[in-house]
Amino acid sequence: MRQFRSAAALFRPRSIAIVGASESGGAGWPRAIYQNLEHAGFPAALYLVNPNRTELWGRPVYPNLSAISAPVDLALVIVPAEASAAVLADAAAHKVKCALLYAARFGEGGDDAGAARARAVAALCARTGLRVSGPNCMGSLSLRERLLFYPAPRVRGLPAGPLGVVFQSGGTFQYWLQQAATRGLGFSYAVSSGNEIDLDLADYVNFLVEDDATRAIACMVEGVRRPDAFMAAARGALAAGKPVLVVKIGRSEQGRASTQSHTGALAGDDAVFDAMCARHGVIRCATLDDLIDTALAFMPGRLPNGNRVAMAGVSGGAKGLFLDYAAEAGLTFAKLSPETLSAVAALIDPGVKPDNPLDTGASVANRPEVFGKVCRAMADDPAVDIIAMQGQLPLAPDEPANPTPFVHVAGAGKPVLAYGRLAQNVTDVGRAFQTRTGVPFLQGLPETARALRALIDYAQRTRRGIAVLPAPAGKPENLAGDALDATLAAYALPPPRSVRVSKLEECGRAAARIGFPVALKIVSPDALHKTEIGGVALNLASADAVTAEAARMTERLRAEHPSARIDGFLIQEMVSGVELLAGVREDPQYGPVMVVGLGGVLVEALGDVALRLLPIDEAEARDMLDSLRARAVLAEFRGRPARDVVAICRAIAGLSRFYLDHRTWLADLEINPLVALADGVRAVDVRMVERR
Amino acid sequence: MRQFRSAAALFRPRSIAIVGASESGGAGWPRAIYQNLEHAGFPAALYLVNPNRTELWGRPVYPNLSAISAPVDLALVIVPAEASAAVLADAAAHKVKCALLYAARFGEGGDDAGAARARAVAALCARTGLRVSGPNCMGSLSLRERLLFYPAPRVRGLPAGPLGVVFQSGGTFQYWLQQAATRGLGFSYAVSSGNEIDLDLADYVNFLVEDDATRAIACMVEGVRRPDAFMAAARGALAAGKPVLVVKIGRSEQGRASTQSHTGALAGDDAVFDAMCARHGVIRCATLDDLIDTALAFMPGRLPNGNRVAMAGVSGGAKGLFLDYAAEAGLTFAKLSPETLSAVAALIDPGVKPDNPLDTGASVANRPEVFGKVCRAMADDPAVDIIAMQGQLPLAPDEPANPTPFVHVAGAGKPVLAYGRLAQNVTDVGRAFQTRTGVPFLQGLPETARALRALIDYAQRTRRGIAVLPAPAGKPENLAGDALDATLAAYALPPPRSVRVSKLEECGRAAARIGFPVALKIVSPDALHKTEIGGVALNLASADAVTAEAARMTERLRAEHPSARIDGFLIQEMVSGVELLAGVREDPQYGPVMVVGLGGVLVEALGDVALRLLPIDEAEARDMLDSLRARAVLAEFRGRPARDVVAICRAIAGLSRFYLDHRTWLADLEINPLVALADGVRAVDVRMVERR
Repeated sequence: MRQFRSAAALFRPRSIAIVGASESGGAGWPRAIYQNLEHAGFPAALYLVNPNRTELWGRPVYPNLSAISAPVDLALVIVPAEASAAVLADAAAHKVKCALLYAARFGEGGDDAGAARARAVAALCARTGLRVSGPNCMGSLSLRERLLFYPAPRVRGLPAGPLGVVFQSGGTFQYWLQQAATRGLGFSYAVSSGNEIDLDLADYVNFLVEDDATRAIACMVEGVRRPDAFMAAARGALAAGKPVLVVKIGRSEQGRASTQSHTGALAGDDAVFDAMCARHGVIRCATLDDLIDTALAFMPGRLPNGNRVAMAGVSGGAKGLFLDYAAEAGLTFAKLSPETLSAVAALIDPGVKPDNPLDTGASVANRPEVFGKVCRAMADDPAVDIIAMQGQLPLAPDEPANPTPFVHVAGAGKPVLAYGRLAQNVTDVGRAFQTRTGVPFLQGLPETARALRALIDYAQRTRRGIAVLPAPAGKPENLAGDALDATLAAYALPPPRSVRVSKLEECGRAAARIGFPVALKIVSPDALHKTEIGGVALNLASADAVTAEAARMTERLRAEHPSARIDGFLIQEMVSGVELLAGVREDPQYGPVMVVGLGGVLVEALGDVALRLLPIDEAEARDMLDSLRARAVLAEFRGRPARDVVAICRAIAGLSRFYLDHRTWLADLEINPLVALADGVRAVDVRMVERR
Repeated sequence: MRQFRSAAALFRPRSIAIVGASESGGAGWPRAIYQNLEHAGFPAALYLVNPNRTELWGRPVYPNLSAISAPVDLALVIVPAEASAAVLADAAAHKVKCALLYAARFGEGGDDAGAARARAVAALCARTGLRVSGPNCMGSLSLRERLLFYPAPRVRGLPAGPLGVVFQSGGTFQYWLQQAATRGLGFSYAVSSGNEIDLDLADYVNFLVEDDATRAIACMVEGVRRPDAFMAAARGALAAGKPVLVVKIGRSEQGRASTQSHTGALAGDDAVFDAMCARHGVIRCATLDDLIDTALAFMPGRLPNGNRVAMAGVSGGAKGLFLDYAAEAGLTFAKLSPETLSAVAALIDPGVKPDNPLDTGASVANRPEVFGKVCRAMADDPAVDIIAMQGQLPLAPDEPANPTPFVHVAGAGKPVLAYGRLAQNVTDVGRAFQTRTGVPFLQGLPETARALRALIDYAQRTRRGIAVLPAPAGKPENLAGDALDATLAAYALPPPRSVRVSKLEECGRAAARIGFPVALKIVSPDALHKTEIGGVALNLASADAVTAEAARMTERLRAEHPSARIDGFLIQEMVSGVELLAGVREDPQYGPVMVVGLGGVLVEALGDVALRLLPIDEAEARDMLDSLRARAVLAEFRGRPARDVVAICRAIAGLSRFYLDHRTWLADLEINPLVALADGVRAVDVRMVERR
């Protein structure tokens, strides 16, 4: 089976049939859609279908699709759920390419009859090749083609443009488009994808990736039905330089549960979804407003070459707030050169410090040209990769508004965002101004900080590309005991050092080679329960202590079992350091993932973990450690030396390779603790679960 | 000294002088302010002062304030920083009540000459009783009095209303007011408070608390100069039922540093500021947009009787997202009665589940009356304390918009918020609609969740009141060793149990009384370094083991020191449980605070702590534990029994009382670890620092 099904007949049909056409039936939807087509001058051939009439709106009405002599690309099926099966059978028989199914009650909310209907549709699609969009949806919009299959006139004002839109939530679909248009976005294609019985998120994204007019893709997602196809579409999007932006429900358990019952789509593990997004350059937006602001930020098509942000405004308070939001978003500010700082100092208010982020002082607020020069000086600094400058769209035609500063700053060739400190009204005048400047005007300081982060992360992913999973090796012959230890050590996951000696008198020297303190165990088939006869000693601090303890163990054992055989002694280093957890498993949706955390038994309760898709190299391992809240314990901490972070990163990357090489037989692997020392790491406890 | 200085002459002057009056000087500010007064029909007597002219705008110009024969309540001082000292001396001499000082360069940004100027102003105020507002500010607005001391005409459209506003950021002041007005808020008094050399945040808040027309107070804060006065003002506000809303810079270290250099105000510990807000019912808003949405939410003056939220909308996707944001905001949803659920089921779309939060299904979107009935049924449920219903303001006069559903739901007598899923434009039509419904229209799902939380928290604080610090007890005579242990135990902070016996043969029975395992220590003046002679044994599991070990210790000690005196043995329980940290200290701004955390050495690195102002009772202790991310380890966790949370809460409340009783001599007290057992707690390690 091919990975993607074509949505071409949905978005670019040359002939359309409205099934269920009537003046007032279908809650007025057939009529509303007809009027949208009429308003657009009927951009495609149109047929009406209704078995109960012969004429409507001055057109002939056909009893069914098969009765239409011409081919029909797309059937808009506006009939109750119960009647849809017959219509789809008719559509398939007539070689209709795609059916857009609006009705609800196809199994969402857990009703059995609906679920059966959905299964029947899926089977029909598989059998006949008919494509279905929906059901339980609000239709689709092809803005350039002027095909508005949405049951209300209010979508007519939406502008064509470069943003493709896929919303699983029909209720929010049009509302979001309206506000996005108010803010200055325009759309190529937009679809409310509903229950996705056939065409799904991955198919639509793939269509938009292949569509020349689409430059970015905005999605609202409740669940990803085909994770592999979605990841493939995301790979295609990255390769095509088209950012995919997603608002996804399900950060909370309650949100996930609600989604599951609402759409029947598997919500999955939200942290794994985040990891998948990070890996594939998919931008996850926090709110529906962010989806607009971040889409705007991507519109000029410029990406930063690095992560160094410059920011300039005319308010000290806003600068302080922005620093707080920037810290939350993990932004890094560029260190401006002395030349830039003195150029800036010459332009801003006396007594105000040239700095980044910059507050110019109040007087610059009324001198836009000066503000433009200040920002341009910052943007020209080689240390700056991206700049955010304060800016506000004019509301009314008579409002003084000067596009020059923004055009001037954009002239530096780097990405520029204008930001307002609050949400505010946007009018025709504002949109025209925004277009004239060529700079996107964002609203809100946290939203701006997050959009900067999105541009930086996406650009980095564009440069790094998406790592692919290598083929697994076969099952090695023996992976237990010493063989496992040796193999793990070869993957940078060494166990605690240990030496086995056969004679009591060798103990001291062996312990000295390992380094003190050490643990000592007697090796004897007659001392299976070592603790009972005192056959284990911990924290021995000198060669003498080791030898003496080995002698005492021998005595005690002989006292219990005069004939006991003693094979020797095991001397092992005492591992004491910072405890990490590192585990790999196969996520049912997105494949092998690794979780890394700090803090022994508390890791789970705290949720202070980093989670990434495999493969993970040392650079990404470093990112994982940096993302932990408790990362401070890896540096010098409370008088203890810094931990060997290089060795930890090698161990994480090694664990990634080990799992991928052995994943044909290995299901699950957890090292807990992986102890980080000042020099090296030790995989103290390794737990593996084989596949069944 | 009285705690509050009066801002009455600033906000309600009967006579005003513009000092520095000129046609084009002062960057046009004198002229702009004059024109605002002219536009309002000169609501107060006005005098112009400028030593270089005698006439301006058809009025006489006085060389100085003393030359005006009539009394002057307020001098608007629009002269450079260097010239201000002379003007203020003149003002004081003429018994001017208040001076509003606009100029910058009074020490902000760390300039020494400016700092000296600021000290001189403070000294003058203290000596003469002259009040000063500013410097480094954008002035003030008295909306009902039509006194607009802001240097631009754009403030003329701001409406009068019940919200008082104090902004330390002059750059954001007018911009925020404008957008707040767009959203439907109106203002009593608004002030850009600048460097607050004299009149400060606490004074302004106190003025607004005492002003009858003010019903809520919105602030943007960089630093609180007089914490005690601010807390006193906040107490007054709570008593008067006037919520104080604050956006404060300084969540991040960078934000705090920027603030410090911007305003010279001490930014302080952000977590302590949060604790102070929580204690005093001050609502801390996350963003400038939240400051608007939350202020709107408080406008109707209704508070919820509890924390149980109902939410209803017409989009399943928005419901899912709202659940995510509600989880972040810590909201609790009401459990609707069977009667309510069946009433709702009868109204919403077939196949859609009646639930809370509720998605009615798409068809209800077009039937507002039905939606109103659904929401009213939910609001009438006794389990519901507050309801959020989807609602959108109309933009244009011809847009169909029906206020009835909102009025109907408000009729239930509980607080009602209407929410939109996104920011959107608000027009005159929308504002009029909002007024007609009597319901505030919020924008954005996360903003709505946070506003609900603010109403709930504020209402709870209103019910609970603000606990006061009791008077401290004197210094007890002896608080070391056993006396300290006994005292702490009386405050529910028992040390590990221990028994001292004098004879070897008593050890076993004593250990059994404590319960195994135990630790054993030999008590002897000749065994000062117990580890060297093996005078400490841990984890002894039986009476026999204790007796045998005590005998061995005796032997070993006698072997080293044949004449050693043995006073007896100390037997102590081995404490093994969940480790907490509980510490109390005196914050330099807000007084005694307690921090409680989980996780031993990681507490600090993770920052997973709860911080509150003292006093703390057991109920608040419970809230602290509930707010910890790692709280799961206190319940049954990985096969270990649940911890004695009641005992932990008693211990926290006890620590609060102990500190307050002993704070005359005690500076700092940390219990780390405070070990939580399945039954009880033990204060294992107590560290105290006395005051110097």
